[in-house]
Amino acid sequence: MTIRMDKAALTEFLKTAFPQVHGDFQIDAVRSNSVTVRLLTAERHLRPGGTVSGPSMFALADVSIYLAILSRIGPRALAVTTNCTIDFMRKPAAAAEMICEARLLKLGRVLAVGDAMLFSDGMTEPVARAGLTYSIPPGAAI
Amino acid sequence: MTIRMDKAALTEFLKTAFPQVHGDFQIDAVRSNSVTVRLLTAERHLRPGGTVSGPSMFALADVSIYLAILSRIGPRALAVTTNCTIDFMRKPAAAAEMICEARLLKLGRVLAVGDAMLFSDGMTEPVARAGLTYSIPPGAAI
Amino acid sequence: MTIRMDKAALTEFLKTAFPQVHGDFQIDAVRSNSVTVRLLTAERHLRPGGTVSGPSMFALADVSIYLAILSRIGPRALAVTTNCTIDFMRKPAAAAEMICEARLLKLGRVLAVGDAMLFSDGMTEPVARAGLTYSIPPGAAI
Amino acid sequence: MTIRMDKAALTEFLKTAFPQVHGDFQIDAVRSNSVTVRLLTAERHLRPGGTVSGPSMFALADVSIYLAILSRIGPRALAVTTNCTIDFMRKPAAAAEMICEARLLKLGRVLAVGDAMLFSDGMTEPVARAGLTYSIPPGAAI
Repeated sequence: MTIRMDKAALTEFLKTAFPQVHGDFQIDAVRSNSVTVRLLTAERHLRPGGTVSGPSMFALADVSIYLAILSRIGPRALAVTTNCTIDFMRKPAAAAEMICEARLLKLGRVLAVGDAMLFSDGMTEPVARAGLTYSIPPGAAI
Repeated sequence: MTIRMDKAALTEFLKTAFPQVHGDFQIDAVRSNSVTVRLLTAERHLRPGGTVSGPSMFALADVSIYLAILSRIGPRALAVTTNCTIDFMRKPAAAAEMICEARLLKLGRVLAVGDAMLFSDGMTEPVARAGLTYSIPPGAAI
Repeated sequence: MTIRMDKAALTEFLKTAFPQVHGDFQIDAVRSNSVTVRLLTAERHLRPGGTVSGPSMFALADVSIYLAILSRIGPRALAVTTNCTIDFMRKPAAAAEMICEARLLKLGRVLAVGDAMLFSDGMTEPVARAGLTYSIPPGAAI
Repeated sequence: MTIRMDKAALTEFLKTAFPQVHGDFQIDAVRSNSVTVRLLTAERHLRPGGTVSGPSMFALADVSIYLAILSRIGPRALAVTTNCTIDFMRKPAAAAEMICEARLLKLGRVLAVGDAMLFSDGMTEPVARAGLTYSIPPGAAI
């Protein structure tokens, strides 16, 4: 499977296309079917007690799988999230960065499906697990 | 079913317990088994094109059902979100406030389940639908 | 919204297209955007203790929303289930029939989304709640 | 992590506790945190065209994660499925057996979470992916 956008290209895309949030995320790795993305945890991502908020974890999982799709179909596409399921399983470490391991399970003509495992940096057990589905606009997919 | 916290009590609680986000939300109504909560849409909730972001919709659904639980079990409880599923069905109206109609489907000893329908203010068809589960700590539930 | 298949037409369709399972279900009502379908609970649907099994509830929710879609797009379509989320909230009444209230939330060009509330006949609180997404093949939707 | 029930013990348990369905499944492997379970596909699991039905896949994922939990907490427990999310991603091979790789992501005091990847025997890409949550009755978990 060809990678159409690598780490540098995806980082640049994030900056241009999502100016509101690009500073929240750092792309650590891009592989043929998966990406590793980091939440650069800041005050605005935290809940009382210093744990990363649910919406921030949602955002991390969403952007990660979105980037995994783009790495394969290139920047012309505009995939839209249609479904997200998250299981919150453990309390994140206070104020720690979060690391998301996201992989594509399916990249179809109309739908893409990915899953993501979210870790607090330094913890071995996952904090959350997410599955997301995206609708791929006509002409966009491979 | 008794309401243990009404609109005023829940509004005050939101302010005290969630200083980071309370300004994002306005509680419109509290009923015996449901609440209506409004996202006071601002620049930070938007994606390119002016539509409300997925994480902001997640946050709205989560806070709404959480408040519905608190309205029934009172402020001493600390319910924790364990699962969330969202279907994003339509594009929200640009920059419009979002209205969440949330209701409790189950308030058990250990688990509470609620669902939420999210609308752009002025649209009749729902933008998103969410289901959330919360773990209720021992001694907290009715 | 036009109904393209009414109760009689859907009942006939179920019999022809799903000979393996049509005897499990009875269509109670078909409305412009929702259907009521009944699981004719038999030994094969039960778990130890006499409660309806999870897979049987899944089947009931799936067939109900599928029928709701067909009632709108007609029998030529072949919608495919792409996602299902079920919350099992209460123990079903032993050996009772189950009633599913299913409604369409979205009937789009490529995706349809519905939700379903499942009750044991005679109970007022829902046993389960389900949300399902279907992929609509090209040329099938309205 | 100790295994409290091995393959032989789980197979025996399935036979005794679930006489209705034990003939549908074969336990292929039990590891410290995961199991492999096979659906012995028969006529009753099929839909028109010979593909395994959604409810049969649900049943396979459910029994697999349930067995993974029992392998850790022993036969005295009665875990109850509270939530299930399945993504159906590809058409199963006609009439083929299905193989489920299930692993535990969390085994807590009150909740267990697992995920499962389902394959048609002989296909390399997954047919479906599922995530399930179970409520663990008091005194049952480790």
